Amino acid sequence: MNSAASKPALVGIDWGTSSLRAFLIGAGGEVLDSIMSDEGIMHVPDRDFDAVFDRVVGSLPVGPGLPVLMSGMITSRNGWVETPYAQLPLGAERLAGSIVSHGTKTGAEVHFVTGAATEHKGGPDVMRGEETQIVGVAALGLTDGLFVMPGTHSKWVNLEGSGIANFSTYMTGEIFAALKDRTILGTLIEDGDYNGAGFEAGVAAGLEDSADLLHNLFHVRTLPLMEMIPKPAVADYLSGLLIGTEISAATQDVDTADHITIVGRSDLSDRYEIALRLGGFQNRHAPNDVVARGHFEIARYAGLIG
Amino acid sequence: MNSAASKPALVGIDWGTSSLRAFLIGAGGEVLDSIMSDEGIMHVPDRDFDAVFDRVVGSLPVGPGLPVLMSGMITSRNGWVETPYAQLPLGAERLAGSIVSHGTKTGAEVHFVTGAATEHKGGPDVMRGEETQIVGVAALGLTDGLFVMPGTHSKWVNLEGSGIANFSTYMTGEIFAALKDRTILGTLIEDGDYNGAGFEAGVAAGLEDSADLLHNLFHVRTLPLMEMIPKPAVADYLSGLLIGTEISAATQDVDTADHITIVGRSDLSDRYEIALRLGGFQNRHAPNDVVARGHFEIARYAGLIG
Repeated sequence: MNSAASKPALVGIDWGTSSLRAFLIGAGGEVLDSIMSDEGIMHVPDRDFDAVFDRVVGSLPVGPGLPVLMSGMITSRNGWVETPYAQLPLGAERLAGSIVSHGTKTGAEVHFVTGAATEHKGGPDVMRGEETQIVGVAALGLTDGLFVMPGTHSKWVNLEGSGIANFSTYMTGEIFAALKDRTILGTLIEDGDYNGAGFEAGVAAGLEDSADLLHNLFHVRTLPLMEMIPKPAVADYLSGLLIGTEISAATQDVDTADHITIVGRSDLSDRYEIALRLGGFQNRHAPNDVVARGHFEIARYAGLIG
Repeated sequence: MNSAASKPALVGIDWGTSSLRAFLIGAGGEVLDSIMSDEGIMHVPDRDFDAVFDRVVGSLPVGPGLPVLMSGMITSRNGWVETPYAQLPLGAERLAGSIVSHGTKTGAEVHFVTGAATEHKGGPDVMRGEETQIVGVAALGLTDGLFVMPGTHSKWVNLEGSGIANFSTYMTGEIFAALKDRTILGTLIEDGDYNGAGFEAGVAAGLEDSADLLHNLFHVRTLPLMEMIPKPAVADYLSGLLIGTEISAATQDVDTADHITIVGRSDLSDRYEIALRLGGFQNRHAPNDVVARGHFEIARYAGLIG
């Protein structure tokens, strides 16, 4: 347990598809303690969410009666309690107003954040969990502008003031894995260390022409066959091509002088940082654990924190 | 055997990755007989191409001494005899000038067409086999304009006169299969009959914005989840989205009033016809068996036909 600046005020849980993180949050919004588990919603035995919840919260140094707020895919159809999608624009206050409460088998009351939905020309976009991260980001003073949240399905979020004005989802990460595993491109890919030159060449090709991805993907095959890039560079060239294409599409209306904020820390967010720099975009990283700050803000607006 | 307008003059073989077709071609360029086999180059036991060749040609009603011309992936590194790539512009005469000859184990002399290569901003494009089909198309009088050859890797070819001026490869078919088999989209896909409404809605979304494919693919997930398209339509929506995106990208410089010629007959080429019509493009189909006509033209220029 970290040294605590204030007494525990809230348990916040970010419960996703493949893992969950539970935070003990102090009265000033700071993280006092946290636990990580690989019991994401797809890995909960017998879908017994109560059992996982009791065990996880029981392992935090938390007395009875502390409010609990959860966000993420735990609120989806395949989760514990399905919550509706809130419409945009959306900030802490509206999320607080649409919390869904639920009694556990052991008699505790827990609260769930709703997801967010919006509608584009081609169809709806949805998020569950990222809206809480964004609330945390905004509470830390990073308001207005464009935010990218790298992941299997990356999210690009427009903030106006502290509220989500618009967002889009890109399937880039999942498509990378499918192409690597299931196409002729995969047979060219050798395992190895990160190849920076290959990644940056791919990014450049993607940034150059995002409209021609289905064609550019064929070059991932011809470039090594013609010995124009070395085979150990192929995987990172493909990764760069996809991320560059995503950035080009997602920033069509963005001035290159604008700041773009990267939310989340991972090898993947390092790749986005490199690619954004190559595209001429200023970028900065949001702090870690912004989701806990989002739980705190929403709980405060909802009057859950005494 | 069909009724023959003239005596046999050539054996033409289109030997691809997954299958081969051998044609007995008459002195007027017409197909007298043909055989199909699933012994594509990836399915030749012990890579014994001689054995497959002897059996296939032996089953055609052909006397000894008839010239043999082959095209397709049989000329690739994984084939029988690797031939170089010819550069553009490229027609029957230049292909005839770069034929590679080879003696079989049983003493026959056989001839191989070269592939074609070109260079785009993002990397090289290559073809093996399609150049021979295009020669056949041109010999039938379909010169000048844009030609699409649907397939796992579809080709878009610009003809100037009878020569290939430029071409591009789109990995659309292979990407459809990988996304269907290996992403969360696949879990939404139900087997069933062709769903025309789903296909056409996908085409419209792809034609609308080819630069945003990585985002539009997420809608293949959200549209059925929000019950905006029925689940039996999902596979065809995905197919339409990819084909529409390809057509939009490949026709960036094309006047919608121009004719586009579809080469090849298959369920897939029917889909391209529907999608081209939705995009406002006039289109027409090339006749079947153009590859045999291509073999005939190249052999004639090469002096192989007596």
